[in-house]
Amino acid sequence: MSDTTEQQYSTSQLQHITDALSNGMYVQVRKTLHNMPACDVALVLESTPSKVRTELWQLIDPEFHGDVLEELSEDVRNGIIRNMVPEKVADAVEDMDTDNLVELLRTLPDDTVQEVLSSMDFQDRQRAEKALAYGEETAGFVMNTDTITLRPDVTIDVILRYLRLKGDVPEDTDTFYVVNRHDKLVGYVPVTKLLTARTDMTVKELMTKNAEGIPVEMPERDVAKLFERYNWLSAPVVDAENHLLGRITIDDVVDIIREDAEHSMMSMAGLDDEADTYAPIMKSTRRRSIWLGVNLFTALLAAAVSDLFEATLSQLAVLAILNTIVPSMGGVAGNQTLTLVIRGMALGHVSPGNSKPLVIKELAIGALNGIIWAVLIASVVALWKQDVMLGAIIAFAMMINMVAAGLAGATLPILMQRMNIDPALAGSVILTTITDVVGIFAFLGTATLMLMP
Amino acid sequence: MSDTTEQQYSTSQLQHITDALSNGMYVQVRKTLHNMPACDVALVLESTPSKVRTELWQLIDPEFHGDVLEELSEDVRNGIIRNMVPEKVADAVEDMDTDNLVELLRTLPDDTVQEVLSSMDFQDRQRAEKALAYGEETAGFVMNTDTITLRPDVTIDVILRYLRLKGDVPEDTDTFYVVNRHDKLVGYVPVTKLLTARTDMTVKELMTKNAEGIPVEMPERDVAKLFERYNWLSAPVVDAENHLLGRITIDDVVDIIREDAEHSMMSMAGLDDEADTYAPIMKSTRRRSIWLGVNLFTALLAAAVSDLFEATLSQLAVLAILNTIVPSMGGVAGNQTLTLVIRGMALGHVSPGNSKPLVIKELAIGALNGIIWAVLIASVVALWKQDVMLGAIIAFAMMINMVAAGLAGATLPILMQRMNIDPALAGSVILTTITDVVGIFAFLGTATLMLMP
Repeated sequence: MSDTTEQQYSTSQLQHITDALSNGMYVQVRKTLHNMPACDVALVLESTPSKVRTELWQLIDPEFHGDVLEELSEDVRNGIIRNMVPEKVADAVEDMDTDNLVELLRTLPDDTVQEVLSSMDFQDRQRAEKALAYGEETAGFVMNTDTITLRPDVTIDVILRYLRLKGDVPEDTDTFYVVNRHDKLVGYVPVTKLLTARTDMTVKELMTKNAEGIPVEMPERDVAKLFERYNWLSAPVVDAENHLLGRITIDDVVDIIREDAEHSMMSMAGLDDEADTYAPIMKSTRRRSIWLGVNLFTALLAAAVSDLFEATLSQLAVLAILNTIVPSMGGVAGNQTLTLVIRGMALGHVSPGNSKPLVIKELAIGALNGIIWAVLIASVVALWKQDVMLGAIIAFAMMINMVAAGLAGATLPILMQRMNIDPALAGSVILTTITDVVGIFAFLGTATLMLMP
Repeated sequence: MSDTTEQQYSTSQLQHITDALSNGMYVQVRKTLHNMPACDVALVLESTPSKVRTELWQLIDPEFHGDVLEELSEDVRNGIIRNMVPEKVADAVEDMDTDNLVELLRTLPDDTVQEVLSSMDFQDRQRAEKALAYGEETAGFVMNTDTITLRPDVTIDVILRYLRLKGDVPEDTDTFYVVNRHDKLVGYVPVTKLLTARTDMTVKELMTKNAEGIPVEMPERDVAKLFERYNWLSAPVVDAENHLLGRITIDDVVDIIREDAEHSMMSMAGLDDEADTYAPIMKSTRRRSIWLGVNLFTALLAAAVSDLFEATLSQLAVLAILNTIVPSMGGVAGNQTLTLVIRGMALGHVSPGNSKPLVIKELAIGALNGIIWAVLIASVVALWKQDVMLGAIIAFAMMINMVAAGLAGATLPILMQRMNIDPALAGSVILTTITDVVGIFAFLGTATLMLMP
């Protein structure tokens, strides 16, 4: 809790480190990095181009490699680990919490994982292999196993004496879990209750009973929603028979919440949500090219629709000039609806059961938008091109495309979710294809009907 | 910690409530709502159209109105409060935590706030007015004042006896703060340390010294970053003289983190980030129309650029057909860069000090993209239209626009941040304008030069 003026602090520090590095003052950089908390060192690494990053990594005391790796985002971490020999990785991860260790191992290529595992000592390897057996991005994946458990029939006095003897408790312990002799979860006692309770009470008298644990296979995103909704600081994780397996703490959940919230935004631009801001050029280009390829295909599709009206376009160049307006407005309106629905789904507001009023509402907004922007564009075009008929045609196309945009924006994500396709990833491109095709058809089609002999 | 199978649970429950309501089974709905935790009732309200919402609100026991209001998102809450008489609002908010109360009052129209305040009893009013004096969205705004403080010279034994006498501690207490006799913050003691420490030790011996508090005027977004970075569960808030004013707990920070992460995505679509998924049609239409209006203007600007080449377009209809491809690809590539940079800024990876390598990197990606997609589009067009020259022209335009997209996507958000404009809100529309104008100019301009006599 030392540094509270972080923004300025770390920016100037970063500048300082980068300058010192480019001047070859390695000793000074090493010293500066040594005096920073691991989370700040991670931020410095994430804020530098991949080449500088490699140099910086060499200057960090190997003893702190593990701490820094824990704080790094997946993409940046993988880039660094790929350049390390497996023994070094094994050394670095030795002291990691299980949850962080497993998360790290999970993101590595399989052969590297095997090499790292075989470089570990027996106990660490066993711990890691057990945790790796849980499904990716599940409760088992993010839980920690360093839990203090209490037995129901013990008195508070005994517990307090035991804790004083032990001298400390695992990090971020806010609740002790109570298990019976079969290790099944039967209740919990907040740490603060041990402070305020009479010492002759038993755990059984003090505990909140019938606590349900989080099933070990629950997806981490659902775990995060529960934490967010019920304001938990930690929660017990259990197997199908209610055996206590570990606990999840809020600090890991915060990361999931941020990643979850960022996911939609990054996906909608066709970017991997763990993407490294300073990733190497070739890697970034390759990653983004899929999205650009899909877009080229849809742009060609739109061009092919225009191509159907070549005869009209060759006679009336003014149509070519105005041809982009209706698709563009439809795209923006549709994306507003799409974004709202995708966010509503992420927050749990939209589900198959209550989607009907939402679709009706968005259709109504589309119709209203259609009227507003049809009137406006008709006036602009009629004045600009001195052609009332042309204004009427573009207004008609605008009406149709705005309704199509509202309908597509609201129904697409709901349909895609039902088909288990991520609407954030593919929704935007399909929507734009629809609004482009409908917009061009409506405008050039109507124009052909009305203006061509 | 009762309900862990939330997704199915609340969806079927919502269906059940909606069905019962439309069948006029008010007593049953009232009973169901009564048995749900406040956070779930809030979710039900957020998941229903505004009309049904009003009916549901009537069926909630007024005693729980306050709890539910605390859990609701700003937009939905305001809609409900606007329909309540101020005395009822005052009754509902009576038992709220200071931070939630102030957050609620802050979002209400000024005259409603005055009415609510004057309906409160003296003590509540004083508490609220004091907290309202802090700047909006600052640490003072989200802090709680129910902190237990310790004095340095007291022994642990005395504290434990005091706590047992008191019987409980404020919710989410994980740390006790230590103040001197002038109420200045001098250190802190985690709750768990009181359990493990020898009881004859003094607070002074046990505490972590020199704890810096969060300045009361720090923006809440920066507070959230600190929590996220240092994995805090709570943190003390101090004034300029280091007097302890209160504490911020992780449960409030989690909301800020989600809102902050969502903000960029919603802003990029021109949506208010607190927007209610089921807001009334007129309200939604009005809100979204600003964005559509801006887009209409930029679409007309692009049309005006095409208009400059009317002579070319009227002779070569094929140009009209292909005219949308280059702007579209530039828009997608530019938006990828823009999204990445905006997210990098939010995470603190991008700052004026280290933006140069980022701009260079994105320019290089733009150039690489330009080459890839130029070759591809040239081949497609040459084959489709049987015209190698046309292929070469569109390839040239693609090259130029991709570089422009990379440059604009990387520099725009950095420039805008320097000018204190939110890049998430305005970046995308300015970027698209640039890629449209450059794309059309490059394509039609080159075509005019090369193909026109």
